[in-house]
Amino acid sequence: MDKIVHTNIAVIGLGLIGGSLALDLKSAMSQLRILGIDQNPAHCAKAIQLGIVDQIIDLDALSHEAMVILLCIPVDAIVHLLPQLLDRVHANSIVIDTGSTKGAIVASIADHPKRGRFVAAHPIAGTEHSGPEAAVKGLFMGKLNILCDINQTDADALSVARVLFERVGMHEIAMDAKSHDKHLAYVSHLSHISSFMLGLTVLDIEKDEKQIFQLAGSGFASTVRLAKSSAAMWAPIFAQNKTHLQSALNSYIAYLQEFSRLIEEENQSAMKELMQEANRIKEII
Amino acid sequence: MDKIVHTNIAVIGLGLIGGSLALDLKSAMSQLRILGIDQNPAHCAKAIQLGIVDQIIDLDALSHEAMVILLCIPVDAIVHLLPQLLDRVHANSIVIDTGSTKGAIVASIADHPKRGRFVAAHPIAGTEHSGPEAAVKGLFMGKLNILCDINQTDADALSVARVLFERVGMHEIAMDAKSHDKHLAYVSHLSHISSFMLGLTVLDIEKDEKQIFQLAGSGFASTVRLAKSSAAMWAPIFAQNKTHLQSALNSYIAYLQEFSRLIEEENQSAMKELMQEANRIKEII
Repeated sequence: MDKIVHTNIAVIGLGLIGGSLALDLKSAMSQLRILGIDQNPAHCAKAIQLGIVDQIIDLDALSHEAMVILLCIPVDAIVHLLPQLLDRVHANSIVIDTGSTKGAIVASIADHPKRGRFVAAHPIAGTEHSGPEAAVKGLFMGKLNILCDINQTDADALSVARVLFERVGMHEIAMDAKSHDKHLAYVSHLSHISSFMLGLTVLDIEKDEKQIFQLAGSGFASTVRLAKSSAAMWAPIFAQNKTHLQSALNSYIAYLQEFSRLIEEENQSAMKELMQEANRIKEII
Repeated sequence: MDKIVHTNIAVIGLGLIGGSLALDLKSAMSQLRILGIDQNPAHCAKAIQLGIVDQIIDLDALSHEAMVILLCIPVDAIVHLLPQLLDRVHANSIVIDTGSTKGAIVASIADHPKRGRFVAAHPIAGTEHSGPEAAVKGLFMGKLNILCDINQTDADALSVARVLFERVGMHEIAMDAKSHDKHLAYVSHLSHISSFMLGLTVLDIEKDEKQIFQLAGSGFASTVRLAKSSAAMWAPIFAQNKTHLQSALNSYIAYLQEFSRLIEEENQSAMKELMQEANRIKEII
């Protein structure tokens, strides 16, 4: 166990987030050696070819190869793998996740003897693209990283994680996992569902109305952009954040139904009132 | 009536669309003199100050001042003003609207003796901003202009309109007003409602959860952008396009309810199927 290499960082999951983190960490700290793990052999080959990682290793080799392990896989895979990973890593290793939910992840290792070695992080960065080809330098620059339940993490592990996220240009906020999941249901997860369902609605009508999309302007492109996102990544996020997300979704559907009623009544003054209320978003975003 | 000045173009409504058209037409054809009309005196003053128009005139002076009249006002105001405008314009004048609905507008002058002098146009360009300050050069470059019911328009009037839209860089498609309204309900109007209601949903939760917006990433910003749009412009569009829009909205709400049920059941495979179906939008947008 003493053989652990302190200048190695292992990235599990060589997609958009893992790949981009690998690129930025390597470029910020040239002495680092980035080891990659991905269950998809094509992703491994691509990550090598694109210079995202220095070497591909097995999960079995991980425990004595890297001091720091970044978990950049779908949140259901994190919940499954994280306890096993903590079981086998070196007592001084640090495991950091980057998942878009936090409640189920911290619950999965709440009573683990090495709980202190885990840092629950959510770097708020991403695009609608996925896979190693989607990895880009500078993705995290100026963005926010959310650290959750930091009182459960050992001080040295927390310090290392903070340095890494700072080196890729992120600023930080700390909160409990439950608050994280509630907030993100509204400002991220709901947006993705609204966009996926908008895409489906318009694709349906396209079956009868060919070439409808040539009539779309930049407004449609903007609202439907997130419908390009990875289904494999988002399904477990929605399932894990079910409770908060259902509240958000119910409220959204209720507003749509109310607006539909106002359209039916051609009640323009009430429509305008609601839209002017929504216009307040200008002051914020 | 012979006094009509052929190098004058009048723009009624000096907001985003009218202002941007004025800027681009002037810059494409320097001999043009652009006359502005707006019921808001502050918009008139701003349009002069920003060099958007050469002169502000009264609606009463319009009939002998300009050969071409561009109507860039909300669609309810178009339906109200258009018949009166055709009553009083010179027999050779051309009136072109730019509204986001077409059915109610063409119906308002269907039996007018000067129907042939009217061109029903919808340049698909815009931003979430409004008013003369929102006017920008190049807004229409490379974008699509929809001309509706062109068989109802005199050949010379249609030719002039085509030249003007071509000069600001637009390409063209022709269709009947009913198809226009159906298609736009899906690829434009529905997007605006989804975005307005998303804004309301998140602003509501913000009352209890301060600073929630600092957690928002680029995905939320993209889906909520249209919620900044002008309520005065959109309410009459939604009312006029009620029938098609209700179909679109009902289909959208049904998809959201279905997805909500899948989340409740934590049925990830069915969620993934729907999202992968939505991913087809990649091939199009």
